[in-house]
Amino acid sequence: MNYSKKIRLLGIVWLLICFLSTGHISGREKEPADTFGIVIHGGAGVIAKKTMNAKNERLYREKLTEALTAGYRILENNGSSVDAVEAAIKVMEDSPLFNSGKGAVFTGEGANELDASIMDGKTLNAGAVAGVRRIKNPVSLARLVMEKSPHVLLVGEGAEAFARQEGMDWVSPDYFFTKRRWKALQKIKAKEKKEKKKTSPGKNALNSIRNEETGKFGTVGAVALDKNGNLAAGTSTGGMMNKKFGRVGDSPVIGAGTYANNKTCAVSATGHGEYFIRSVASYDISALMEYKGLNLREASELVVEKLKKLGGIGGFIAIDGRGNISMPFSSAGMFRGYALKGKKPTVKMYKE
Amino acid sequence: MNYSKKIRLLGIVWLLICFLSTGHISGREKEPADTFGIVIHGGAGVIAKKTMNAKNERLYREKLTEALTAGYRILENNGSSVDAVEAAIKVMEDSPLFNSGKGAVFTGEGANELDASIMDGKTLNAGAVAGVRRIKNPVSLARLVMEKSPHVLLVGEGAEAFARQEGMDWVSPDYFFTKRRWKALQKIKAKEKKEKKKTSPGKNALNSIRNEETGKFGTVGAVALDKNGNLAAGTSTGGMMNKKFGRVGDSPVIGAGTYANNKTCAVSATGHGEYFIRSVASYDISALMEYKGLNLREASELVVEKLKKLGGIGGFIAIDGRGNISMPFSSAGMFRGYALKGKKPTVKMYKE
Repeated sequence: MNYSKKIRLLGIVWLLICFLSTGHISGREKEPADTFGIVIHGGAGVIAKKTMNAKNERLYREKLTEALTAGYRILENNGSSVDAVEAAIKVMEDSPLFNSGKGAVFTGEGANELDASIMDGKTLNAGAVAGVRRIKNPVSLARLVMEKSPHVLLVGEGAEAFARQEGMDWVSPDYFFTKRRWKALQKIKAKEKKEKKKTSPGKNALNSIRNEETGKFGTVGAVALDKNGNLAAGTSTGGMMNKKFGRVGDSPVIGAGTYANNKTCAVSATGHGEYFIRSVASYDISALMEYKGLNLREASELVVEKLKKLGGIGGFIAIDGRGNISMPFSSAGMFRGYALKGKKPTVKMYKE
Repeated sequence: MNYSKKIRLLGIVWLLICFLSTGHISGREKEPADTFGIVIHGGAGVIAKKTMNAKNERLYREKLTEALTAGYRILENNGSSVDAVEAAIKVMEDSPLFNSGKGAVFTGEGANELDASIMDGKTLNAGAVAGVRRIKNPVSLARLVMEKSPHVLLVGEGAEAFARQEGMDWVSPDYFFTKRRWKALQKIKAKEKKEKKKTSPGKNALNSIRNEETGKFGTVGAVALDKNGNLAAGTSTGGMMNKKFGRVGDSPVIGAGTYANNKTCAVSATGHGEYFIRSVASYDISALMEYKGLNLREASELVVEKLKKLGGIGGFIAIDGRGNISMPFSSAGMFRGYALKGKKPTVKMYKE
């Protein structure tokens, strides 16, 4: 190899390295999706083998598998990622096992206030609802907001009025009553009362919420890639147990709890919502991929670390346009699972 | 120059280019802030010279200058950027000229529902409220949420209950009545009634909101850099005129309407909120700076372009840690101004 050839080769190597270092990913975008799949979560928190008995473990495994299968079947039959995400979340919303829909925790006032969101990675359309009390499947209402209104976020009774106008049935608020969640609220209330005697009255209500944050969260979510290469993400929750003052967490906040963009990835979060809002956590994963050239795993794991440094515990499920998945979390456990093209659905709970 | 020297030189050039292309900005972060300043907006929309009379122009100029001065004085006297942002926004909230606080537009039901948020770039703490009807200065309640609660976002009556618990006075909902806004609502209502006869009843309410989107928005916001190099951002709005179904826009959504991070910039947005939520617009400016190495102007102008491509009109005010400012917008005009260390406050309205 003579001198000028060596210089030319160096130039080519240099261009290649600079190309990669600027995080150019258009090559990935153009690849046709030759795969499809769905990833779900049923919440992050204190899920340790020693506190979970065999019967409960089986119940969670069965329900998570049912949700995965509902979403997977849609994708297999050429359905859209938005359809798959909605179907999987509905299965979990209809189960009392998770803190969403039927199994939602109680607010400090003894009500159930539900939040949900959904985002279409192809169009960047999104819909979200917060603080609804009469909607059986908040994720379906979020989808209705996305598709039948010019808005993204509707809250409270207004969101319920929109549901009724669009022909969605209301359920009685009693529908969300479950003995397990009611007992849990009474337990916290008793603790709160006890603590009231010790601390100043003003900050007391907030302190008790703080204590509760160490508990299990239980938000549900799903992300999917369909055969057309379109990504979607959705999240649904009953929020924080014993919550007060109309508190809304990250689940209905696009960019915080939910984000999807065909260019990068689809993400659903679960955990200590306030930190996820302040960190714009779900969009941050996408931005790290698009602007910094990180892959899905690197980006999602980095954001879990960033959240941890700020003080926030939780996790993500994420999928990119090539069917790569990631499910990082900083809590003791996270109910999660995935079903990818041609593979058996897999469900996990603990750190493995 | 011999062969090995040339190779070495090429290597140095290559390293330099790669270093720059990865957007490394730690050099900027380490620079001490030898300046300070505040930037404000009073909303983007149809602000054209031909529709603005001399008297109104003077009123807007005076009020914007008053808001700038209130914030600037705090910064000059070693106050924090959070204090400056709150003070400037309060001046605009207390004026009937802007669509926030006193001058908030009416909802479809004839009420005034206010949203606001604030973020501290030093700690990444944030607070926000949505749909409050009895709070004179929603930005101050957002700050209370940030500082006195473990939460970020409180909505509706819950947020008002929190305000009362923390000793913040309520005002009567009548306080927000202004003849100008009431007349504007009646005009839309009449138009809506007329259109009802032409179109199907179901979609009608939403169409009328769509039409209204072409009007003036009028959200207010402020961003500031203080003498300690700390950034802060805040936004306050009455939302969309004739809004229905508990619609919430981007103003109380951290990452969409408001974002601040000492690492990069402080941003407040105004415009067609739904697009700003879907684009996670304010955080996107920060991410483009942090991950892609764009400067403030490049990043903010790029996000205005991205929004436009998606269909969203509006603008931003932004300031970085070195006191660079940017005020890009895609609408006909934007009420805006800045007051930087040692310089006379400047107010603008039109494209100049």
